[in-house]
Amino acid sequence: MTFQLLGKDGEARRGRLETSHGPVETPVFMPVGTQGTVKGVTPAQLLELGGGTQGPQIILGNTYHLMLRPGVETVQALGGLHTMAGWPRAMLTDSGGYQVYSLRERTKVTEAGVRFRSHIDGSYHDLSPESAVGLQEAFGSDIMMAFDQCPPAGDGVPKNQVVAAMKRTHRWARRCIDARQRDDGALFGIVQGGVDRDLRSISASAITALPFDGFAIGGLSVGESRPRMWETAQYTAALLPENHPRYLMGVGTPEDLLACVGFGIDMFDCVMPTRNARNAKVFTAAGDLNLRNAKHARDAAPIDPACGCYTCRNFSRGYLRHLDKAKEILFSTLATLHNLYFYLWLMAGARRHIEAGDYYAWSADLMAQRGAAPPGRGSWPGEP
Amino acid sequence: MTFQLLGKDGEARRGRLETSHGPVETPVFMPVGTQGTVKGVTPAQLLELGGGTQGPQIILGNTYHLMLRPGVETVQALGGLHTMAGWPRAMLTDSGGYQVYSLRERTKVTEAGVRFRSHIDGSYHDLSPESAVGLQEAFGSDIMMAFDQCPPAGDGVPKNQVVAAMKRTHRWARRCIDARQRDDGALFGIVQGGVDRDLRSISASAITALPFDGFAIGGLSVGESRPRMWETAQYTAALLPENHPRYLMGVGTPEDLLACVGFGIDMFDCVMPTRNARNAKVFTAAGDLNLRNAKHARDAAPIDPACGCYTCRNFSRGYLRHLDKAKEILFSTLATLHNLYFYLWLMAGARRHIEAGDYYAWSADLMAQRGAAPPGRGSWPGEP
Repeated sequence: MTFQLLGKDGEARRGRLETSHGPVETPVFMPVGTQGTVKGVTPAQLLELGGGTQGPQIILGNTYHLMLRPGVETVQALGGLHTMAGWPRAMLTDSGGYQVYSLRERTKVTEAGVRFRSHIDGSYHDLSPESAVGLQEAFGSDIMMAFDQCPPAGDGVPKNQVVAAMKRTHRWARRCIDARQRDDGALFGIVQGGVDRDLRSISASAITALPFDGFAIGGLSVGESRPRMWETAQYTAALLPENHPRYLMGVGTPEDLLACVGFGIDMFDCVMPTRNARNAKVFTAAGDLNLRNAKHARDAAPIDPACGCYTCRNFSRGYLRHLDKAKEILFSTLATLHNLYFYLWLMAGARRHIEAGDYYAWSADLMAQRGAAPPGRGSWPGEP
Repeated sequence: MTFQLLGKDGEARRGRLETSHGPVETPVFMPVGTQGTVKGVTPAQLLELGGGTQGPQIILGNTYHLMLRPGVETVQALGGLHTMAGWPRAMLTDSGGYQVYSLRERTKVTEAGVRFRSHIDGSYHDLSPESAVGLQEAFGSDIMMAFDQCPPAGDGVPKNQVVAAMKRTHRWARRCIDARQRDDGALFGIVQGGVDRDLRSISASAITALPFDGFAIGGLSVGESRPRMWETAQYTAALLPENHPRYLMGVGTPEDLLACVGFGIDMFDCVMPTRNARNAKVFTAAGDLNLRNAKHARDAAPIDPACGCYTCRNFSRGYLRHLDKAKEILFSTLATLHNLYFYLWLMAGARRHIEAGDYYAWSADLMAQRGAAPPGRGSWPGEP
């Protein structure tokens, strides 16, 4: 994998990844395909999404879920993750580290790695830096993530816990690099350190000293307040090397993406567009809608008359509300197509406006249209 | 609507309906779109299905379900059923008569019509010949069905019950014709009479004496044995006028379709391909598969290597089984696309082989390949 920084507008970056499965224009949003499918849509529907990119150039898979079901031997028997899932473009896999964190009651962490119980059948499994890399290589991932330890969530977590998780993350990062067997997949390191500036500095120094192909900011969007999240993302992004891609894991709302692109982040993933879709919450440039609201029952207008997605070109809010109430599968599909289109459209706009040199004005306008405030004065380079 | 009989091979008929929403080549299978959507697939996916027909030329909607949810006023506010559902081709609606039958504990039938309780919220509703036609006209249906009364199911139902339901169906048929307000939708009459030849003769005489645009055989595939069903369908089809379309309601398996095309039926609908798909049962020319079977877990082959559907061109049995086990929406979509493609492929084959004059040999071969027996000697014109 290579990364080219094509241009900047303030701190916002326009770049291009070249992966074994094609190019990825950044800033980029990566739809989440937890169990080997982006929930509710076919690969063909993804490829036809549009949004200025002819569909996503990269999607995400979850090592934790795939190792439990269908299992790595099955993924290999079915030709690897790309072939199995019918996805011709790039795939990023996480390492399982985040699930270890989010399911931590079931988990025992030692220096060697993690022993955890499957959420499916209670069986015991192990993950370590070595096996996490081995699994991701076996899946055929284009971008693999280092196996990290996320500290507990929230603004008030004791510092010693955050420090311990960070230090272990650094030791494991080295082991991940040493565990690589293939040279066709990139490996990204993950900076931890909670919402503490000093720890983020220490972690960024330790992780960027290692020969990773890109750098992620982990441990955010896990319960801390939005101002802390934005402030930490901004602070940490500035500590990362210019010539490598920067990935903010698990983030976020449209405003989070717009703000963090403005802080110099290149890559994002989040279940929000797909999960919210299934819960009838849809995004638009003019603000978000809940399609379960009774006022939409006989509304013949699309979700967003200005949207070019398949759903908005063909279906009314009233019909979508009916499908949701009737628990029809089609609802999830159509709402997911719309929300993913919106996120791709957002990132296509970001790329275009970085190129044009008016990213901050454009993104502040868009946040205002959506009824959201841009980041506070001082932290937002384009703020008037 | 017009119907042209283009040719025959024995009793099998090759025809063409011209509806307000385009042509329908017969014999035809109509996918069922109960609540205003064919479950699990988008209209675009239906239109791209292929199977020799570039997707179905007609789909079905259920008056009973649509009148309860979203309700006729909502369907009208959203532009009628075609516009609401984003379906550009023909739609047939049933009259609600079958649901009255299948939900009969909740139902009170009088000469005026039927009072029933909604399965959704227990509220009371009425259906009559007049309101069933009025609803279907309000939906904008291309082919409307008369409001009939189905007798109880099974081979051993007392004859007086079957006679009473049949006679009421005849009286209601006249009222349906008198209730028509629009001339852009066709109206089909329904022949009842259970599995009794004499009653089917009486019913066919009564219904075909009325100025309907087509004729349906109702009250089959409701619990009677397959030989009785086939025998009754064959007997009744022969009583229907040559120059009108013949529709066998709610039927059936691939073998049912092949047999009944051979008896001179033109139109079919059934939930089987869509419902079975969601239960992991898929059809192929070489026999049917249950994708939940453990033997498919690491099988990299598609459902049917000879099938041209999107699912078979892109996905393995092993991946499909994984999606089903993981309860992913995508499973329903991919299995539905395959099963509908199979049914459309089957009917495209029937049309082609009727034209070629070898329908009975082709269909007997196909049944044999599928491990099914063709109809018994004597009833099957092509039987060697």
